[in-house]
Amino acid sequence: MSLDNIRVVLVHTTHSGNIGGVARAMKNMGLRNLTLVKPLEYPAPEAEWRAASAIDVLEQASVVETVAEAIADAQFVVGTSARERRIPWPVQDARQCASRLVDNAQAGEQVAILFGREDRGLLNEELELCNLHCHIPTHEDYPSLNLAMAVQLVAYEIRMKALGDTLPAEEDAHWDTPFATAKDMQHFYTHLEETLIEIGFLDPSAPRQLMRRLKRLYNRVRLDEMELNILRGTLAETQKSLRDAGSGGKKT
Amino acid sequence: MSLDNIRVVLVHTTHSGNIGGVARAMKNMGLRNLTLVKPLEYPAPEAEWRAASAIDVLEQASVVETVAEAIADAQFVVGTSARERRIPWPVQDARQCASRLVDNAQAGEQVAILFGREDRGLLNEELELCNLHCHIPTHEDYPSLNLAMAVQLVAYEIRMKALGDTLPAEEDAHWDTPFATAKDMQHFYTHLEETLIEIGFLDPSAPRQLMRRLKRLYNRVRLDEMELNILRGTLAETQKSLRDAGSGGKKT
Repeated sequence: MSLDNIRVVLVHTTHSGNIGGVARAMKNMGLRNLTLVKPLEYPAPEAEWRAASAIDVLEQASVVETVAEAIADAQFVVGTSARERRIPWPVQDARQCASRLVDNAQAGEQVAILFGREDRGLLNEELELCNLHCHIPTHEDYPSLNLAMAVQLVAYEIRMKALGDTLPAEEDAHWDTPFATAKDMQHFYTHLEETLIEIGFLDPSAPRQLMRRLKRLYNRVRLDEMELNILRGTLAETQKSLRDAGSGGKKT
Repeated sequence: MSLDNIRVVLVHTTHSGNIGGVARAMKNMGLRNLTLVKPLEYPAPEAEWRAASAIDVLEQASVVETVAEAIADAQFVVGTSARERRIPWPVQDARQCASRLVDNAQAGEQVAILFGREDRGLLNEELELCNLHCHIPTHEDYPSLNLAMAVQLVAYEIRMKALGDTLPAEEDAHWDTPFATAKDMQHFYTHLEETLIEIGFLDPSAPRQLMRRLKRLYNRVRLDEMELNILRGTLAETQKSLRDAGSGGKKT
């Protein structure tokens, strides 16, 4: 799926290194359209250096004079905002905003997300151009996010939404070996119990909770077939070397 | 709610500026415990400068020599990983990992999340110390995230989870026994390897992937203390009966 209809707009950025950091953060998450509104110093070597392999995003960036120009053809505009505003605007967190940005972009709309100055964010008259305000819930002890970090978080949420939350919920969804069957597990438990008795660890007349605990352990992990073979192998080898050591001793 | 049981561990960081960026990213999201494993250059003025108002996080950071030391008392360890590994480990995305980190921390456990070197991440032997691997789904055109950005994303997901936490905790939240520490697990693996060699199952000159597979298995399940004792007991008893059988044979 394409995120080509989504643009990131940086307003009056002061530190040119941040522009490079933003380009990299965007490309890491599959975003490519960057618009710079009146950056203090640009082009700048520090922007290029910080962009690393996202230099193409920088090269294709538009540079314009006003926010109005940057969003002229946009049909849905989100503005990031750290502060409470005097007149509350509709505000959502980055996850909710990203969801709406992607939904609208996929419906064919041009959408934009605005990030303000390093020191004081977007001005009221800029925020008033937005359909929605976006708030990243930082901690009250140190709420001030670096500009590139803020873009990184929003771009990440956009990518997570675009991927459709389709990532495997189960940690073992792409396992390399099939999982063992219940029948194989039963054979394993019988073999395990037998071996534990042979080595003298399990007393059949006073078994306590030992086998139950071991079953809980191995059922909890869900053994795959190769792991089961390894464990069966160690049991067989334990039995064998125990018998060898016994009979080998007898021979001498 | 407190995130005091969560520690961020940076392994062999090359650029000291990144350490400062990480400290800021953490404090922005309410995390405070930072451990540095053998940073190339630290303390460093660039770290302090990039930390900005998170200088307190830097000042309280621990500096240690090894990953094992950094996670010795941790009961749940997550390692960030960009690459596909030859033997897949349980892997979840940052959101899922953050959810489990917060659940376990709130249940009173010590938890750690590891971030590797800027150029090649965590090594295989470091990833094998982890219960779970964390993958941030970057775009294939430019998958390489800056270190501080990666920490920012995970710290953000931790905060989002901590803020929104009303869901039932994970299945092992009410476990009956504390989970084993990483240090105990290391002792267990050493004992296991030793025993497998004694019974002739593991050939030290051709170890194949045997220990790696066994580590994956036991780290995946997260052994509790009693389970670990049982397994250590079976190893000790196997060694003992093997020696007894050998010497007992000699007597007859």
